[in-house]
Amino acid sequence: MKKFMNDAGSLVADSLDGFVAAHDDLVAFGQGRKHVRRRFFSPGKVAVIAGGGAGHEPMHVGFIGSGMLDAACTGHVFTSPTPDQILGAIQEADTGAGVLLIVKNYDGDLMNFEMAAEMAVSAGSHRIETLVVSDDIAVERTARGTGRRGVAGTLIVEKIVGAAAEAGHDLLSLKAVGESVIAVTRTMGVALKGATVPQTTRETFVLGENEMEVGVGIHGERGRSRQEIADAATIAALVCSQILNDLEPMPRQRILLFVNGLGGTPPSELYVMFGLARRFFEAHGLVVARKLVGTYATSLDMAGVSITVTLLDDASIALWDAPVYTAALHW
Amino acid sequence: MKKFMNDAGSLVADSLDGFVAAHDDLVAFGQGRKHVRRRFFSPGKVAVIAGGGAGHEPMHVGFIGSGMLDAACTGHVFTSPTPDQILGAIQEADTGAGVLLIVKNYDGDLMNFEMAAEMAVSAGSHRIETLVVSDDIAVERTARGTGRRGVAGTLIVEKIVGAAAEAGHDLLSLKAVGESVIAVTRTMGVALKGATVPQTTRETFVLGENEMEVGVGIHGERGRSRQEIADAATIAALVCSQILNDLEPMPRQRILLFVNGLGGTPPSELYVMFGLARRFFEAHGLVVARKLVGTYATSLDMAGVSITVTLLDDASIALWDAPVYTAALHW
Repeated sequence: MKKFMNDAGSLVADSLDGFVAAHDDLVAFGQGRKHVRRRFFSPGKVAVIAGGGAGHEPMHVGFIGSGMLDAACTGHVFTSPTPDQILGAIQEADTGAGVLLIVKNYDGDLMNFEMAAEMAVSAGSHRIETLVVSDDIAVERTARGTGRRGVAGTLIVEKIVGAAAEAGHDLLSLKAVGESVIAVTRTMGVALKGATVPQTTRETFVLGENEMEVGVGIHGERGRSRQEIADAATIAALVCSQILNDLEPMPRQRILLFVNGLGGTPPSELYVMFGLARRFFEAHGLVVARKLVGTYATSLDMAGVSITVTLLDDASIALWDAPVYTAALHW
Repeated sequence: MKKFMNDAGSLVADSLDGFVAAHDDLVAFGQGRKHVRRRFFSPGKVAVIAGGGAGHEPMHVGFIGSGMLDAACTGHVFTSPTPDQILGAIQEADTGAGVLLIVKNYDGDLMNFEMAAEMAVSAGSHRIETLVVSDDIAVERTARGTGRRGVAGTLIVEKIVGAAAEAGHDLLSLKAVGESVIAVTRTMGVALKGATVPQTTRETFVLGENEMEVGVGIHGERGRSRQEIADAATIAALVCSQILNDLEPMPRQRILLFVNGLGGTPPSELYVMFGLARRFFEAHGLVVARKLVGTYATSLDMAGVSITVTLLDDASIALWDAPVYTAALHW
C-alpha cells in the first residue's frame, strides 16, 4: 500500500487539517476540532448537518458553505463519527430554527446520529429531524437488515436541501423536500480496483486482471457480483439499465445525471462514462436536464465510477440551480 | 491495465465527447471536432489558446471559458496536437485582437504550435504571440536540449493571462504578463505509481513496493531519482525545499500554493500534502496568500502529487482573484 500520509492513525486528522487550511475563507474547525463548520452561520436558517466515516472526501466537508451544509462530522476511515462529535456540531450550528441531519443509511451512522439527536433534544431542547439517504440500488430493496446504502446520491440530497434551507424553508418542510429527492434518486457503482484501507494496508477486495466488481458501495464492501471486465459502453449500459428499471421514469422525464469518481479514476475516464450514460438515457427517452461529473464521493483510492440519477421537476431544478459556494461544488 | 474506455484508439475522442456534453453551457466543439472552444467569443479580446497531448485532463479543455481560455487543442495521448488542429482553433477564435498561444515546453508541442502560428500568419494575417511554460524544476536549468518541462504551473499561467485578456490587455502586454508569471512559477512532482498508457497497456515505469519516483513529469517520463518511499512530511519537505532553493523568494514574500493530483490520488491525500506544504513554506517565512488543491493536470492514472508555487504581487493577485467560469475552475 502506498499513500501520501504520515501514518495511518493521523491520515484523517492531517487531511482535515489541510482541508480547513486550504478553504479557510469558507470553513473552520468547530470546538475541539471535532467537526468542520461554516465560518459564518445564518441565524434563523435551519442548520443542515451531515457526516459519516472518512475516506469519502470531498464528501461531506467539501459541501460545507453557503447553499449547502452548515457543518459536517468526520469519523475514522469508514467509521461513523461519534455521538459526541455530532452533538457538538448540533449545538454549534443550531441558531434557533432547528437542525436537519443528513445520514447515509448504515447501521453505525444511524445509531450514532440518533443518539446525538436524543442527547441534543434532552440537553438543549434542540428541534431535530433526520433524513436517511439510501440511493444504492446494488442492495436489493427487499433485503433484510438496514436496506439500501447511502452513497453518491447523498450529494444531491445535500445540495437540494441546502438550497431549500437557504431559501427559508422551515424544518418540517425541509425534511419533506429531502424525502422527495431521496425517493427519486438512484446510484450504482463499478470498481476496477478495490480500496486500500490505511490501517490494514490491504485492499478490501482483490480483483483479477480481467475482473470488475459490479454494485460496489463506498466502504470497500464487495459488490453485488464479480464479472469479466468489459468495455465502457457495456459497463455504462449495465449500470444505467438497472437504474432505469428501478426508477421506472415517465417518457421525456427530466433527470440529473451525475457521474462520480471513486477516488483512483482520472477525469478522462469519468467523461467517457458520462458521455455513454448520457447517450443511454437519451436513447431511452429521458431528458438529461442537469449534469455533474467529478470526484465527489470516494472510497479512498478505489478505481471506479458510480452513476447517479435523480428525477427532476421544476422545483428541484430551481433548488439544484440555486447558488452554492463550497470547496467542492460552486456555482 | 484496466480503464473505463471502449478502446485505446477512441479514448481521447470519447472523453472529449463526454466533456463537451457535460459542459455544453460553456463549451462546444470547433470545426471538425478538432478543438474545443468557448460557446461564445468576446469580440475585441485577445484570444488565448492552449493545447497539448491528451492524458492531462481536465487540463486544458477544463480551463475554457470566461476569464481563462478561448479554445484548446487536444492531441493523442501524450502527443502534441497537429498544426492543422491548432490553425483551426486560431482561425476560429481570433476576433481581430490577435492570439496568444500557451505552450508547455516539449519539442513536439513547440514545433507544432510554431508551425501553426506561421501558417496562420501567412494564410490569414493573424497576429500571434507564444508563451512557453517551463515550470518543472526536476529538469536542471542547465540541461542541454529543450530545458525545463511545462507541467501543472501552466494552469496558473492560463488563469492569470486569461484574466488579463478579459480585462482588455493587448497582445504584447498579455505576453509580458504571462512571461512575468512563468518567471516566478515552479513545480515538482512525486509519483507512487506510474501512468498506464492505453495503447501499450503498460505502466511507463514500474515502481517497487517500497519505491517512489521523485521529479516526475506528466508524460510518464522517469523522474529525477528513484527513492525509498517516505512519509508525507518527508516528501513534502523534499519537494518544497527544492522549490524554495530554486525560487529564492524574499522573506514575507506572498505565494500561491497549488497542490495538484496526477490522476490516481484521492482528495484526502492531496489535502494531507497541502497541509504539510503550507506549514513548510510558512515555517520558512513565506505568506501563503492564495491556495489551490485538486486534480487539475494529470498524467493519466498516475498516483502522484505535484506542488507548484508562484510568487505573487498585487497585480498577479488581482488577476488570480478575477472571476473565472470554466468546467474545472470557477470563482
